[in-house]
Amino acid sequence: MSHNTFGHLFRVTTFGESHGPALGCVVDGCPPGIALTEADIQADLDRRKPGSSKFVTQRKEPDAVRILSGVFQDERMPEQVTTGTPIALLIENVDQRSKDYADIRDKFRPGHADYTYWAKYGVRDYKGSGRASARETAARVAAGAVARKVLNSLYGEVKIRAALIQVGTQKIDRARWDWAETANNPFFCPDASAVAPWTEYLESIRKAGSSVGAIVEVVAEGVPAGLGAPIYGKLDADLASALMSINAVKGVEIGDGFLTAAMTGEENADEMRAGPAFLANHAGGILGGISSGQPVVARFAVKPTSSILTPKQTIDVTGAETEVFTKGRHDPCVGIRAVPIGEAMMALTLADHALRHRGQNG
Amino acid sequence: MSHNTFGHLFRVTTFGESHGPALGCVVDGCPPGIALTEADIQADLDRRKPGSSKFVTQRKEPDAVRILSGVFQDERMPEQVTTGTPIALLIENVDQRSKDYADIRDKFRPGHADYTYWAKYGVRDYKGSGRASARETAARVAAGAVARKVLNSLYGEVKIRAALIQVGTQKIDRARWDWAETANNPFFCPDASAVAPWTEYLESIRKAGSSVGAIVEVVAEGVPAGLGAPIYGKLDADLASALMSINAVKGVEIGDGFLTAAMTGEENADEMRAGPAFLANHAGGILGGISSGQPVVARFAVKPTSSILTPKQTIDVTGAETEVFTKGRHDPCVGIRAVPIGEAMMALTLADHALRHRGQNG
Amino acid sequence: MSHNTFGHLFRVTTFGESHGPALGCVVDGCPPGIALTEADIQADLDRRKPGSSKFVTQRKEPDAVRILSGVFQDERMPEQVTTGTPIALLIENVDQRSKDYADIRDKFRPGHADYTYWAKYGVRDYKGSGRASARETAARVAAGAVARKVLNSLYGEVKIRAALIQVGTQKIDRARWDWAETANNPFFCPDASAVAPWTEYLESIRKAGSSVGAIVEVVAEGVPAGLGAPIYGKLDADLASALMSINAVKGVEIGDGFLTAAMTGEENADEMRAGPAFLANHAGGILGGISSGQPVVARFAVKPTSSILTPKQTIDVTGAETEVFTKGRHDPCVGIRAVPIGEAMMALTLADHALRHRGQNG
Amino acid sequence: MSHNTFGHLFRVTTFGESHGPALGCVVDGCPPGIALTEADIQADLDRRKPGSSKFVTQRKEPDAVRILSGVFQDERMPEQVTTGTPIALLIENVDQRSKDYADIRDKFRPGHADYTYWAKYGVRDYKGSGRASARETAARVAAGAVARKVLNSLYGEVKIRAALIQVGTQKIDRARWDWAETANNPFFCPDASAVAPWTEYLESIRKAGSSVGAIVEVVAEGVPAGLGAPIYGKLDADLASALMSINAVKGVEIGDGFLTAAMTGEENADEMRAGPAFLANHAGGILGGISSGQPVVARFAVKPTSSILTPKQTIDVTGAETEVFTKGRHDPCVGIRAVPIGEAMMALTLADHALRHRGQNG
Repeated sequence: MSHNTFGHLFRVTTFGESHGPALGCVVDGCPPGIALTEADIQADLDRRKPGSSKFVTQRKEPDAVRILSGVFQDERMPEQVTTGTPIALLIENVDQRSKDYADIRDKFRPGHADYTYWAKYGVRDYKGSGRASARETAARVAAGAVARKVLNSLYGEVKIRAALIQVGTQKIDRARWDWAETANNPFFCPDASAVAPWTEYLESIRKAGSSVGAIVEVVAEGVPAGLGAPIYGKLDADLASALMSINAVKGVEIGDGFLTAAMTGEENADEMRAGPAFLANHAGGILGGISSGQPVVARFAVKPTSSILTPKQTIDVTGAETEVFTKGRHDPCVGIRAVPIGEAMMALTLADHALRHRGQNG
Repeated sequence: MSHNTFGHLFRVTTFGESHGPALGCVVDGCPPGIALTEADIQADLDRRKPGSSKFVTQRKEPDAVRILSGVFQDERMPEQVTTGTPIALLIENVDQRSKDYADIRDKFRPGHADYTYWAKYGVRDYKGSGRASARETAARVAAGAVARKVLNSLYGEVKIRAALIQVGTQKIDRARWDWAETANNPFFCPDASAVAPWTEYLESIRKAGSSVGAIVEVVAEGVPAGLGAPIYGKLDADLASALMSINAVKGVEIGDGFLTAAMTGEENADEMRAGPAFLANHAGGILGGISSGQPVVARFAVKPTSSILTPKQTIDVTGAETEVFTKGRHDPCVGIRAVPIGEAMMALTLADHALRHRGQNG
Repeated sequence: MSHNTFGHLFRVTTFGESHGPALGCVVDGCPPGIALTEADIQADLDRRKPGSSKFVTQRKEPDAVRILSGVFQDERMPEQVTTGTPIALLIENVDQRSKDYADIRDKFRPGHADYTYWAKYGVRDYKGSGRASARETAARVAAGAVARKVLNSLYGEVKIRAALIQVGTQKIDRARWDWAETANNPFFCPDASAVAPWTEYLESIRKAGSSVGAIVEVVAEGVPAGLGAPIYGKLDADLASALMSINAVKGVEIGDGFLTAAMTGEENADEMRAGPAFLANHAGGILGGISSGQPVVARFAVKPTSSILTPKQTIDVTGAETEVFTKGRHDPCVGIRAVPIGEAMMALTLADHALRHRGQNG
Repeated sequence: MSHNTFGHLFRVTTFGESHGPALGCVVDGCPPGIALTEADIQADLDRRKPGSSKFVTQRKEPDAVRILSGVFQDERMPEQVTTGTPIALLIENVDQRSKDYADIRDKFRPGHADYTYWAKYGVRDYKGSGRASARETAARVAAGAVARKVLNSLYGEVKIRAALIQVGTQKIDRARWDWAETANNPFFCPDASAVAPWTEYLESIRKAGSSVGAIVEVVAEGVPAGLGAPIYGKLDADLASALMSINAVKGVEIGDGFLTAAMTGEENADEMRAGPAFLANHAGGILGGISSGQPVVARFAVKPTSSILTPKQTIDVTGAETEVFTKGRHDPCVGIRAVPIGEAMMALTLADHALRHRGQNG
């Protein structure tokens, strides 16, 4: 979890800027013998793809992935499999719209990483936010697809799904939760009754050149008990890091999260019965940093994008005061596309812990 | 951030169980030439010490720290300083109350790490929760004291303070926030008017053998812009991991955190003026994973301890159904003692990032 | 230094197989603001390129490198510079000669990694040795070129040069050492008088379908005192790992190396005079794992390649006994091309230690 | 392998100075359920102990080890076992002979780490060489004893033995190699006929206040095929780092090592027969960075200690020229005590790779 590398045994290193020639990643430490094709990865990438509805960025990117290494097949093998060597995944950038950056290249857009990258590095790729762009997350989703295959190969089906449960001020009715619905609307919303009002709400936000935040919930089912490595490699600590590293995320919680502050020990206990079975899952499937065998449940808050039409006060690189606002394409709710990214980060975290656990404990 | 080691350049490895002979840590990568004595560390340890009020565990531990290595002074030197080699800190356990563990050694207490440690390792030190005990955090606080010295030596005064802002259902009035008050009550509460009602509230919880959760806020002032290392070493990602790794923590947020989900881009922007100065700090001092020079603000939720008097349904190591409850000393609100621990984790995260930043960027 | 990643702060992750579509690397943690173009990297790659003489593999690879990320230039900047984000370098494979692998795909060539990869992974890319091919080292050389730029930007000129000092049974006369000569012959030999006999010798080895080993010496001048991080991050320990990781390397020594075993303390001391100046450099520029300011001197032995024309006894994947020999192109002395690779690994090791040192010590 | 931590999954962090109150280590990532007592560790420590013959340092240290954490036993368990949590090992320093350091505290002893520590850190613990003292290796030997237990628990007996094969100019006759002899003489010499001449030779060195170097050979038998992680985590690369990190080591080789430079491909091949069986082991049990199932064979050269009676030219901390020589106890051949240390580093490297291999490959 340092620099641009995520994971310890199952490790992903990503690279690439928003407007450079390509982005991608190297997935290192993958177990050998796992069937893997570009199509396996493309399916996940397509769910994150920009331009898929008017509520996400209008950039047109096919996000076609190429596997450059780490797989093998000859005419005697029924399918292409991983070899245990690094899997390099490459995604070419196609729609780097030619644009005049003169109006923002020297200004720091409030809420963006413009000022902090400049303060840290002294040089900044201002084209489409460079490395700080959410385009980097395509590489995470690609790597996450590999992680899912690893988990399934180890444990049978590990089902990792995410949903948007809040958009701005609008929340779902959790009683109406239906995972199947997440595939039927552009919001990954699990509550069919919320789709119409959300559409209207986001349409008004979009037309106003404004933006709103969101909350995403990620659930992993089929995770065995025992994953996690106290003290500083706790499963929830790594998950918090993984989800907080997603662009614009400002909060992460596990299970009942912040609600537990107001709970008593009696309310919060997840009693056990033979099986083992649990009578509740307030803990979100993690106790003492180790998975309990229950579904692993996490939630994260995505702030509204700072790319809005309203002019904002700011300074430029000389320190002089000025104004800035964002023209052109952007996401009215960046939280929508964070849904498959959240799934990918959950998959990456679990795959790494699966291998770490096996390393220490067999 | 793996196993029992925290950090990359400024690294802390902790060890020790609740009822073993000692616990401690090795602080590795500390810059040389920093004045450091046991007294510097003891001051922070004393703030976390058990037995300091009736609202925290009644275990009596002096938590006296010994520096075993990594410092040097001869008769020509005005003070003892770090040498750049590993600083080992040792804290002997004194009050391992002799107790009959027969009633819990084979049962899994719901909400505790009993079941998951057993599922992971197949063997479990059930005395005082072993490694999963909050006693481990004494080592963090000791290491955090060293981290503070490092930060101060690099940046002048970096002020890292935490406060309890919610206990169970009781919240502070943020308008009454006074940091000085945190030293005047056993709750680290910054709102003097909350102390009396909290005392009454927690007394009732304690007498009922129950427990409640809490929310802690940690603020670091004096952190320069530029700390943080995209993408997977973002300052907020590492902070999330650091705080989530504290026992019983179930949620972490930065700046406005989960509230940003319901905000618009207009509301959430932290506009800039010459200085640079910011007109707000919704971001909690971190943009794009890099510190902005504003105060770094984080908050975390601590669940109620599962050690309560009410019997709970559970199973034993054979899988048979049974009941369990907790006799003896425990914390009615473990969140209280999490306050200095939160400060320590903030200090450790910042010190590591300070060195990492200097390594790459000079 | 784990998996396919080298380094801690200045980190290089390589990927790619001998006969896959491409190979390359991601250089992470590079300081920002360093001028870097593809031409800077190409120069080093050309020195390692296959097909440059009849004494190295006849594979024809242009080894043209593309920078995919991590650099920036706009019309106001005099040159393209690093941004501090990951630098991805891509080299397409061009000459993956179509070949029938039927005769080796199920056999383990003695001395190659065939058997061990198969034993470890259960699947093996046998085309051109897959990941175990020396083609991977092109990525190291590319990354090494970036490392040189980092070192020069930090310390003024750090001169890192290597030479072939022994080929099979033929040694150079060290008294005739002239660095300039290494550019004048296909062996990187610093002794002009050795070129003719070496040519004759290697020609006979080549015609016989045989191969010989070699010894390479690498020297880094301009390295300041202070690089290295006791105890397990000693500069010489990391250098040993870096050089031993090169294909076919079987031994590494620093300074006088194995000769010191037969020396006395009187002979081996590098006495000091004001300056500081040293009266000798038996230590090879490293004391206690930390650079002394003297030239860093390392030497490594490369075994003869196992790809020879003589049939050898072996087994196949079913365990049955058989014979194998290598047809087609190969290096009669793989040690020759190890010369620029040795320089690259020295540069990578020093660049990483330079940043680590600055991180801890400023 | 950074700072004072060795290993990735099986990790050892050491601490302590020569003349501080104690030294020790934290062994993290140890598999659970392995029987472990202080006596298991003490046996190895006793073999390294100073003061055991007149040919090693006369410092009197019992080197009694205490296990502070990471093990558990209750009255129902037949033996104390590891729990999977960090194992802290503590060794108190006893014989920090009170001594006047005035004559060396400001001078840099040639060949020692005095100058480089001072150049790096600006402060130096000059008492008994501080952290640079070979006393640190007691912690390695203690950790190595744990590593042996891990290896044996995984693979049945893994026999790791080392021997001194050269002292100064005196070599053993390899034809007389008898492992049993290493326990019968103070040199760990496997050739009984060498003991008398070595005794005489070293006695003369000792009386002259001089010192000589040595070569140690380490062999691990019972290591399965498949350990090692290309490219930068090759088993031989990690082994080179591990052995080079031992105090005073200047060279490392695997199998035939530097001799392979003068060999042909025909001579160097280790042909295979059914079994699998190998007809030779020039490779030292490692091919392509992965173990082959043959004995893993490594050799390392230890330079003569620079602590000699002859005055040597040097400078002091002000840069002024002066002379220095070493009074008091020291090792005439530090290579002798390096024998058990070499075994420990082999064990640590293999244990880490065993867990890493299991993590990725099951």
